[in-house]
Amino acid sequence: MPAGNSQSLLVVGSIAFDSIETPSASVDDALGGSATYFSYAASFFTPPRLVGVVGEDFPDEHRQLLVKRGVDASGLVTLPGKTFRWKARYHQDMNTRDTLEVHLNVLEEFDPQLPESFRDSTHVFLANSSPALQAKVLGQIRRPELVLADTMDLWIQGQRQDLLALLPRLDGLLLNDSEARLLTGEDNLVRAAQAVRRLGPKFVILKKGEHGAMLCTRDGVFVMPAYPSEEVVDPTGAGDSFAGGILGYLTADGSPPPGRLRRAMAYGTVIASLTVEGFGLDRLKRAERSEIDKRLETYRAMLAF
Amino acid sequence: MPAGNSQSLLVVGSIAFDSIETPSASVDDALGGSATYFSYAASFFTPPRLVGVVGEDFPDEHRQLLVKRGVDASGLVTLPGKTFRWKARYHQDMNTRDTLEVHLNVLEEFDPQLPESFRDSTHVFLANSSPALQAKVLGQIRRPELVLADTMDLWIQGQRQDLLALLPRLDGLLLNDSEARLLTGEDNLVRAAQAVRRLGPKFVILKKGEHGAMLCTRDGVFVMPAYPSEEVVDPTGAGDSFAGGILGYLTADGSPPPGRLRRAMAYGTVIASLTVEGFGLDRLKRAERSEIDKRLETYRAMLAF
Repeated sequence: MPAGNSQSLLVVGSIAFDSIETPSASVDDALGGSATYFSYAASFFTPPRLVGVVGEDFPDEHRQLLVKRGVDASGLVTLPGKTFRWKARYHQDMNTRDTLEVHLNVLEEFDPQLPESFRDSTHVFLANSSPALQAKVLGQIRRPELVLADTMDLWIQGQRQDLLALLPRLDGLLLNDSEARLLTGEDNLVRAAQAVRRLGPKFVILKKGEHGAMLCTRDGVFVMPAYPSEEVVDPTGAGDSFAGGILGYLTADGSPPPGRLRRAMAYGTVIASLTVEGFGLDRLKRAERSEIDKRLETYRAMLAF
Repeated sequence: MPAGNSQSLLVVGSIAFDSIETPSASVDDALGGSATYFSYAASFFTPPRLVGVVGEDFPDEHRQLLVKRGVDASGLVTLPGKTFRWKARYHQDMNTRDTLEVHLNVLEEFDPQLPESFRDSTHVFLANSSPALQAKVLGQIRRPELVLADTMDLWIQGQRQDLLALLPRLDGLLLNDSEARLLTGEDNLVRAAQAVRRLGPKFVILKKGEHGAMLCTRDGVFVMPAYPSEEVVDPTGAGDSFAGGILGYLTADGSPPPGRLRRAMAYGTVIASLTVEGFGLDRLKRAERSEIDKRLETYRAMLAF
């Protein structure tokens, strides 16, 4: 897990116990949450700093899993009560799901205070949470070089003003296609991405699930299909692993800018394709950097013509 | 419109008057149909041979439009009655549509007899029609080198045995993602494509609309996103233009096989992206080969990382 420079990556997000049903299998209380997937994915490139909250029921084994990957867990707070729990059922096509249960538990009182040692982070991922909370986190970082945030329909609809205030402070915004349509009123995805960018972020990454992602920057629009996997066990965590691959690569890599973001997205795509091949972190735990690099080359060849 | 070799491309399909409503505009009786879109798209690469049927209401102006593109229309038959008409309305997202009216008219009696001069065609596109009719056409071609067929849910459900009998006689089958799921019972698209291939065709191209296409061959699975267009006026004809670009390129191009099919698909992708930027043939009529080549290079750069 090379750092290779003085850059450092921070993620603030959720740690969860996920119970997931798919048409062919199910799992209870798997370690999940945005910050978990993000930091595990990023750890293939750089040792990330994690800020999050768990309950007293969070086993040390899970914490050790992350620490062994180089994750700095000194921002992982334990509060009285239970860890955030989420239960969902995927539909037959594995692209859509119903949320069956949400128990915020300790997440409800989450008021992230960054350890002093984290405030010099250069790269930041504000995982999906209320834009007010994301702004509060961002205010605690001294001189961030690259800030990427995720959001969701709940905030677009319910806390739109907070979100609009946050957007100009971001380098990148990550959101899915339906959310971009909701935020901008544009049905065409290219126009929707461009309209999101006009709201402030320097670049926009639209996630399209099994159809991949679209990047919109000052230089234009770029498309990146998903890595075609024949073994989709559980799509949970794909988006946060994608983000973890992107920011992990960008934090560790010192190569010149042109194309860097797309290379980062290709790494994110490959890591997300591994994530979905198992429940929770099962598949990522078996992955090595060499496998990721190999799959990246396969992916590159798939796109060549 | 260079031929450049002794290869020749045949398309057998529909010629139609399309009436189309989109959320922002509409058109009545635009020249359309699978054979029309296919042959116009292919004409950028090679002069295609067209077999189809029209009614007495078909204006000579439409025929001349195709002839001026180099299309050999000696297989275009005029029967007493009216030309096939189709009316559809696109939904807000432009990805789904409702068919409002279908008037088969002369298409109902269509019993394609290939002119003697067409029977030495090397490349063949069997546009969407009943597999029994597709098989009958195929039987009239002496020594086809590459046969690509399109199909649809109607035949998968209603004439499955005929379709299964046709598949081993094809080089390639073109179908959309939901049709591949329907044909194979596989939800995962990679597995569905592989399962279609096991039914006989050497390669399978899954069309995913605005999300592009997937190619499954003996060598593996390849993915190709759609060219991201911000000006989708009318998606009608995208699939047949895509096929026309693919087979037009393959017929005209003499380059070595590795990667040829993917290059052909890239051309098909670019031509389809032009088609959807206008109603009917409006946009393609304004396109030139140089514009297509330029957009191909833009597309290539979009995918590079």
